[in-house]
Amino acid sequence: MSQRLFHFVAGDSGAWSTTEVRSIRGEGLATAARLAVHPGNAPTPASNSPWCLRGMMSNDRYVERAEKQALLKVQAPLGREDSTRAVLIPIRKSAAWWVMTQDERRHLFEEQSQHNAIGMRYLPAIARRLHHCRDLSEQEPFDFLTWFEFAPQDEPAFDQLLADLRTTREWTFVEREVEVRLTRAA
Amino acid sequence: MSQRLFHFVAGDSGAWSTTEVRSIRGEGLATAARLAVHPGNAPTPASNSPWCLRGMMSNDRYVERAEKQALLKVQAPLGREDSTRAVLIPIRKSAAWWVMTQDERRHLFEEQSQHNAIGMRYLPAIARRLHHCRDLSEQEPFDFLTWFEFAPQDEPAFDQLLADLRTTREWTFVEREVEVRLTRAA
Repeated sequence: MSQRLFHFVAGDSGAWSTTEVRSIRGEGLATAARLAVHPGNAPTPASNSPWCLRGMMSNDRYVERAEKQALLKVQAPLGREDSTRAVLIPIRKSAAWWVMTQDERRHLFEEQSQHNAIGMRYLPAIARRLHHCRDLSEQEPFDFLTWFEFAPQDEPAFDQLLADLRTTREWTFVEREVEVRLTRAA
Repeated sequence: MSQRLFHFVAGDSGAWSTTEVRSIRGEGLATAARLAVHPGNAPTPASNSPWCLRGMMSNDRYVERAEKQALLKVQAPLGREDSTRAVLIPIRKSAAWWVMTQDERRHLFEEQSQHNAIGMRYLPAIARRLHHCRDLSEQEPFDFLTWFEFAPQDEPAFDQLLADLRTTREWTFVEREVEVRLTRAA
């Protein structure tokens, strides 16, 4: 089975150097020098790690077939050589989001908020992988971890992508959000 | 937080006596005298337990608002005094199910297979709680655990419910299914 579970470990080691940790909404996260991305089960706990977040790639829950076909045509893979910038964005949505039914969430996600349509505008420059946390246990601090990778010259486009998404109605349901900005370690 | 995680532990103890374990499709499960239902984190491992399954209550993924309102009007709670019969049905769906997009799964689930509509016909006699396993880890043996409770006189209706669901197109995506039939221990 290909790995669907990933651990993101802040600490003294890892392939990514932390540039900045920004608290966007709610409680922030401690800053550590490095971030390691581990596929699979929990890595051996590091002695000097302020936090470890985990999430699972899952089935698509909002994308429809026509959108999926469009996405598949333009989306970019992670790990491109010139993608020396990465950002981890952990998000928790409010209880009001989770009591909605699937059609209500989809309506807010796409018909009102154009989440996929906004994201499509930034492909293939911005590569992305979404991880779900909410069903891993009762105690996960976030609902989603999104991992983005791009080249340094695409950082302004990435900032615009975030600005676009944060003006949507969907984003009014975000109650905690942190940006962990990273540069590939030499 | 109310408990969303549940462990189902086969063994020598628990509030439910096993009547029968039926393999419906794929590999079965060993029969044990009792079944215990534990809310929350993993219970202390029992010395004589052939299996322990776990699942998480989650947000609704296919029900739309109008259906949800209809369901809320007639659905029954677990734990009713006369509900002395219970059935645990672990199910795994095929890879073909999981590569579909949300709209395709919803289409098969309801427009083609009338899953909710079939279930509605057996309310409030049959109480039900659905648990998701797939996003708990990479190694879960099943995708869903459904727990049903009903009075002895409603067992024929329950059997008819299963028969109805198993004639649907949705069910062609089931690759493993087991019925664990139980009676409340005296």
